[in-house]
Amino acid sequence: MSEKLVCVADYESMAKRVLPKAVFDYYCSGADQQETLADNTAAFSRWLLFPRVLRDVSSVDLSVSVLGQRISMPVCVGATAMQRMAHPDGETATARATRAAGTGMMLSSWATSTIEEVRSSAGDGLLWMQLYIYKDRDLTLSLVRRAEEAGYKAIFVTVDTPYLGKRRDDVRNRFKLPPHLKMTNFGSAELAFSSAEGYGEDSGLAVYVAQAIDPTLCWEHIAWLKKNTHLPVVVKGVLRAEDALEALIHGVDGILVSNHGARQLDGVPATLDVLSEVVSAVAGRCEVYLDGGVRRGTDVLKALALGATAVFLGRPVLWGLACQGEQGVSDVLELMRDELHLAMALAGCCSVAEVNRSLVRRPEFTSRI
Amino acid sequence: MSEKLVCVADYESMAKRVLPKAVFDYYCSGADQQETLADNTAAFSRWLLFPRVLRDVSSVDLSVSVLGQRISMPVCVGATAMQRMAHPDGETATARATRAAGTGMMLSSWATSTIEEVRSSAGDGLLWMQLYIYKDRDLTLSLVRRAEEAGYKAIFVTVDTPYLGKRRDDVRNRFKLPPHLKMTNFGSAELAFSSAEGYGEDSGLAVYVAQAIDPTLCWEHIAWLKKNTHLPVVVKGVLRAEDALEALIHGVDGILVSNHGARQLDGVPATLDVLSEVVSAVAGRCEVYLDGGVRRGTDVLKALALGATAVFLGRPVLWGLACQGEQGVSDVLELMRDELHLAMALAGCCSVAEVNRSLVRRPEFTSRI
Amino acid sequence: MSEKLVCVADYESMAKRVLPKAVFDYYCSGADQQETLADNTAAFSRWLLFPRVLRDVSSVDLSVSVLGQRISMPVCVGATAMQRMAHPDGETATARATRAAGTGMMLSSWATSTIEEVRSSAGDGLLWMQLYIYKDRDLTLSLVRRAEEAGYKAIFVTVDTPYLGKRRDDVRNRFKLPPHLKMTNFGSAELAFSSAEGYGEDSGLAVYVAQAIDPTLCWEHIAWLKKNTHLPVVVKGVLRAEDALEALIHGVDGILVSNHGARQLDGVPATLDVLSEVVSAVAGRCEVYLDGGVRRGTDVLKALALGATAVFLGRPVLWGLACQGEQGVSDVLELMRDELHLAMALAGCCSVAEVNRSLVRRPEFTSRI
Amino acid sequence: MSEKLVCVADYESMAKRVLPKAVFDYYCSGADQQETLADNTAAFSRWLLFPRVLRDVSSVDLSVSVLGQRISMPVCVGATAMQRMAHPDGETATARATRAAGTGMMLSSWATSTIEEVRSSAGDGLLWMQLYIYKDRDLTLSLVRRAEEAGYKAIFVTVDTPYLGKRRDDVRNRFKLPPHLKMTNFGSAELAFSSAEGYGEDSGLAVYVAQAIDPTLCWEHIAWLKKNTHLPVVVKGVLRAEDALEALIHGVDGILVSNHGARQLDGVPATLDVLSEVVSAVAGRCEVYLDGGVRRGTDVLKALALGATAVFLGRPVLWGLACQGEQGVSDVLELMRDELHLAMALAGCCSVAEVNRSLVRRPEFTSRI
Ligand SMILES: Cc1cc2nc3c(=O)[nH]c(=O)nc-3n(C[C@H](O)[C@H](O)[C@H](O)COP(=O)(O)O)c2cc1C
Ligand SMILES: Cc1cc2nc3c(=O)[nH]c(=O)nc-3n(C[C@H](O)[C@H](O)[C@H](O)COP(=O)(O)O)c2cc1C
Ligand SMILES: Cc1cc2nc3c(=O)[nH]c(=O)nc-3n(C[C@H](O)[C@H](O)[C@H](O)COP(=O)(O)O)c2cc1C
Ligand SMILES: Cc1cc2nc3c(=O)[nH]c(=O)nc-3n(C[C@H](O)[C@H](O)[C@H](O)COP(=O)(O)O)c2cc1C
Repeated sequence: MSEKLVCVADYESMAKRVLPKAVFDYYCSGADQQETLADNTAAFSRWLLFPRVLRDVSSVDLSVSVLGQRISMPVCVGATAMQRMAHPDGETATARATRAAGTGMMLSSWATSTIEEVRSSAGDGLLWMQLYIYKDRDLTLSLVRRAEEAGYKAIFVTVDTPYLGKRRDDVRNRFKLPPHLKMTNFGSAELAFSSAEGYGEDSGLAVYVAQAIDPTLCWEHIAWLKKNTHLPVVVKGVLRAEDALEALIHGVDGILVSNHGARQLDGVPATLDVLSEVVSAVAGRCEVYLDGGVRRGTDVLKALALGATAVFLGRPVLWGLACQGEQGVSDVLELMRDELHLAMALAGCCSVAEVNRSLVRRPEFTSRI
Repeated sequence: MSEKLVCVADYESMAKRVLPKAVFDYYCSGADQQETLADNTAAFSRWLLFPRVLRDVSSVDLSVSVLGQRISMPVCVGATAMQRMAHPDGETATARATRAAGTGMMLSSWATSTIEEVRSSAGDGLLWMQLYIYKDRDLTLSLVRRAEEAGYKAIFVTVDTPYLGKRRDDVRNRFKLPPHLKMTNFGSAELAFSSAEGYGEDSGLAVYVAQAIDPTLCWEHIAWLKKNTHLPVVVKGVLRAEDALEALIHGVDGILVSNHGARQLDGVPATLDVLSEVVSAVAGRCEVYLDGGVRRGTDVLKALALGATAVFLGRPVLWGLACQGEQGVSDVLELMRDELHLAMALAGCCSVAEVNRSLVRRPEFTSRI
Repeated sequence: MSEKLVCVADYESMAKRVLPKAVFDYYCSGADQQETLADNTAAFSRWLLFPRVLRDVSSVDLSVSVLGQRISMPVCVGATAMQRMAHPDGETATARATRAAGTGMMLSSWATSTIEEVRSSAGDGLLWMQLYIYKDRDLTLSLVRRAEEAGYKAIFVTVDTPYLGKRRDDVRNRFKLPPHLKMTNFGSAELAFSSAEGYGEDSGLAVYVAQAIDPTLCWEHIAWLKKNTHLPVVVKGVLRAEDALEALIHGVDGILVSNHGARQLDGVPATLDVLSEVVSAVAGRCEVYLDGGVRRGTDVLKALALGATAVFLGRPVLWGLACQGEQGVSDVLELMRDELHLAMALAGCCSVAEVNRSLVRRPEFTSRI
Repeated sequence: MSEKLVCVADYESMAKRVLPKAVFDYYCSGADQQETLADNTAAFSRWLLFPRVLRDVSSVDLSVSVLGQRISMPVCVGATAMQRMAHPDGETATARATRAAGTGMMLSSWATSTIEEVRSSAGDGLLWMQLYIYKDRDLTLSLVRRAEEAGYKAIFVTVDTPYLGKRRDDVRNRFKLPPHLKMTNFGSAELAFSSAEGYGEDSGLAVYVAQAIDPTLCWEHIAWLKKNTHLPVVVKGVLRAEDALEALIHGVDGILVSNHGARQLDGVPATLDVLSEVVSAVAGRCEVYLDGGVRRGTDVLKALALGATAVFLGRPVLWGLACQGEQGVSDVLELMRDELHLAMALAGCCSVAEVNRSLVRRPEFTSRI
């Protein structure tokens, strides 16, 4: 790879060249007309930074704590399914790179590597488990158990997927896993998304979800989960103050403001635009994270200024993985760290604690052209 | 047709390929510079959805009542003229597909199938009659009589067409019906838009309207109509609170917020943007519907959240008809149903009654780029 | 000309094809980066029409009075210089067409036809004289005298041109009149813009203005002019309330809200956007007109709703003239009349008196994309 | 050069053709995704001019005072590094042209001509010294001393560069000085940015800054500098009211509102959009200047109306220098003067003192498309 990749967008371009079309489409797509997909990144451009100058920024401390664990920077790896489509090493490569970066990784229920494989790759690295609640409640709890045993530090329950969003390209491509891969956390071919009968004319994954995932999912399930694990429980997919308050009532340990990378309901707001609302409602009673559209160091800084404890990267990690496996993921994480370090220094912040709300404004006048 | 059509926009692209240019232009065009045409769809993108999560959405009930009739979903078929230009079966195919979908169809006065033919195709399906008020008042009443006798359930009087809007392409194409077709509800060639002399250099339909339709049309005509029929009367084409109040004073049974698919006066607001104003003015005293630019399940959801009882589809039905006749219309209707079902589930709504105003916001900050 | 021209934009396209580049550039250009040029037309799209329905619009009266003269519609012909570059008949063709349309024409000081020639072409048609104030005060008064004697009905003093705006293409083209033409109202070659020495490297017209026009132009000149003519005096080029009030103090008979077709100072507001401000300040004490960017019937309607007594067309008349001389100008004027008639009917207005402020709104929400 | 260059944009286009790509990229680039770069110029289009008419503008006085020195116009030459990459004469050509224009030049610490060479080219012209604070404090003071001795009239301390912004093209190009050039104010190759070992894979200049410039830079350094020089001290790079107040507390003589030509932190506001805030905070207690995106006479006028004493040009001077050396810089400065003269005349202002806040507005309604 002689070409120099200097920003996340460069990794995306190269990933587009190296990945099979249906895989790139699956990774890249948002729901329906992809308006929220565009908005997730555009929102970062709508908020402006108002830097302070003449602060001693010779040393900038990026470290933060997430659910009691110290990490080297407020940038974590989010759950993205089926990473072996990007690179033969899949989630294990991601786990190694994440640990090397000193941050945490959220493993998808739909990984193409097992909970245990990922743990063994990650060594003593920080791992969290993303959980889909299956119709089969025992199966669901068995995932939790395995995560507990493998030393994962929290459960992130995805609450925005009672059905799969409509991703037009996946429907056109009749998306399914390549034959040599499966969701290895599951025993049966049906649950491992490798059913011999195939998944018809639709997006295979949409069919899979309709068959396996529980659309009765509601707040009682959160209470049930809390009762069944000693791990902290975070709800992933909240976009409104009212649901943040429900989450607090149901005893969650954290809230991840997320629209699932704009892959579920098109037309919802960009996550950055609703972060403040959730942070205000929560008023410090639990940690609040954000994902969706984070691509640059300044994006992270803006999310911190609006109250996020940390952010999660979805697609950028996949682009790194597709370009160069573990090394690619490391490069993307270091690129984000360097950009965040520089952004904080140029904004006059020596530590995450110094980043505050006054650093960002969205003046009406900046309705950019 | 091997290509997969996954959204209404796909049907439009294919219709553009299969239809003669002058027909596609007639179906597609808006008035003048087509600003309102673009705005009708853009408005749906300006309003954002704020979904609730963790509601049991295992069953979602889409049914609603329109003027006392129960239909399977709040998506109806609007009146569009001269459907046999799209497919040899024209309005009869649309009627069969609409009935199969369990919803209602509004038949245009300017249909290329008679009121009675459409009834016989529709079986016991729900039909409404769209009425243009002709200079010839007896002729006008005879249309009402025939609709009553054929069991149509309401009269939708179009109030925005004292003259035809200026659709530039129709003027360029000197639009007229192909020789083998006519508006079959009328006896004379002049009234059936199949005059042997032709319609000169202008849009033929504009000439037709100037000759036949009554530009003295005013509120007294609504009172007169109410006196002359036992059917419910809906005014189609209201865009302001003041006119909604006039409509109530004149005893209408419903108001269809419509700008005639942006085909009459260019520069009027998108219908979605004025829906709230009309709904507030009406304050529950009659039903309020919307048409214009509805293309996706989320569009329907937004209109419901802003107070519409149901929405009507104009062009999408024509695209389905052009692509595959009755089957195409069915496909479009089922596509809309699936998308609406998914949108409601992902927004946390189990029934139309649960859709409320707080589901949508148009925050100033989302002035998208 | 077999192609059908259905809107003003069509005339512009054809004019671009038939005119020499330097002539089209001179007619078309705005100052500097042409931001105001784009904004003059864009402003009309920002204001939306809120039509009333169910009014009897079988007859619509477009006539209005301007300075006591009745004209057939509130659309007049504005002053544009050097019309013989567009067509051999130049201003005389425009005068004949304007009279046939039953409206008024403002003749430029810089016409390529004399004041007297235009009067004789116009017959008893309504004419007004646009006046540039020359350094040579006697010369200036002689233009006024000739206009008075030829029965012109008012003097429109252009107040926005102490120097000529920088029109980049004119500088690039070193714009000057073709050798067979001159500004025929003036005797000397220098004043007739046909100096043998030429006008150097710059826009020839900018050089001409710097030599001949009086940059000391101020309110005292208006008082002086009022004293020296019995004709009504209108100031052309006001954009602010403060200057409108000054104009009233100095006894003007009318105010033309204009930015000179965006040809003088780039970065000023669109005329439509400041019309309200001027109308409010004037509060009925004199007539207020508008020019700049009027291209469609709905544009006229919006200007009327915001308080203009009438509007003036600049470039559209030149496009008509370039396409087909007198016939072209007639066609453009009839096209505007037809569009305005239709717009008023569809908005529910039977006469200009019925057009009121509530017909237009510029809701923040319609920040169109 | 047969082609006519009529505006700054023309000089940029030509410079792009004549300069080596890596040089043009270095001059042109902004940080990261270049959003602020686009915004710096776009902001000028968001503010509209509301001209007064009918003022005697036969003579317009453009002169102003900066820190007690009278200059012929409120347009000065800003500090841009390494000008000999644009033309063999580099800073000495710029100095001659600036003096000829009767205005002032700010010399970059990173010039490819020495402080003394530039003085001798500038004759008795007005010069200011831009200062980067080096880790080596003595070195830093020696630059100040040399500037004092050479009769420079002020020190502009750049406060926005504790590290160099990430300019993607410079990283891609591994930007460094061509071998025949160096930053001649410094003795050692390391400090002169001509180290034999090169600067690795990154932007060479970013590496240079990390090695040499002091990231502990803080307000105490301003106090220290004030103590160590009798020259006025201006802070260059303030964007917020709070920092403007700090600057006053630390006794600065002027504030340059700047985002370093959008080359440091991407996502900060356009300088024009924050000028008012700084001017209000300062409340006349020191002079306030602006740079960033000034390209047209109307841009200067808008900055003056919002309270700037004068503006500085960065890139436009480089484009002039690249096109034609000293003559090119002169042409650009005269072009700016002519445009400003015309803008002031057309806005009705005879002197800079007459330019006031009411001349500009940023009405919400002008959210241009
Ligand atoms: C290809 C892909 C697969 C994903 N798989 C999952 C998943 O299995 N579980 C889950 O909760 N979220 C999943 N997400 C959502 C991410 O966790 C995250 O919310 C989102 O990607 C963040 O947005 P970004 O991609 O713009 O950074 C997936 C996202 C992508 C792009
Ligand atoms: C081709 C076409 C023909 C139409 N014919 C009629 C008609 O005969 N009577 C009527 O009231 N409205 C007519 N309309 C307007 C529709 O009833 C409806 O208001 C509009 O199409 C809704 O907008 P949409 O096309 O964006 O869904 C027509 C619309 C189209 C596109
Ligand atoms: C080619 C051209 C020549 C013009 N000549 C004059 C003129 O001689 N005197 C004057 O007061 N205005 C002149 N104007 C300005 C017009 O009177 C009018 O303000 C403007 O054209 C209206 O804008 P529009 O062209 O967008 O309709 C000229 C405009 C154009 C386009
Ligand atoms: C190529 C280039 C080099 C620059 N070098 C310096 C510098 O050495 N010191 C400094 O304080 N600012 C430097 N600047 C910033 C300028 O002083 C100024 O803030 C900026 O260029 C103004 O924006 P403009 O280029 O849009 O006019 C540089 C800018 C450019 C474009």
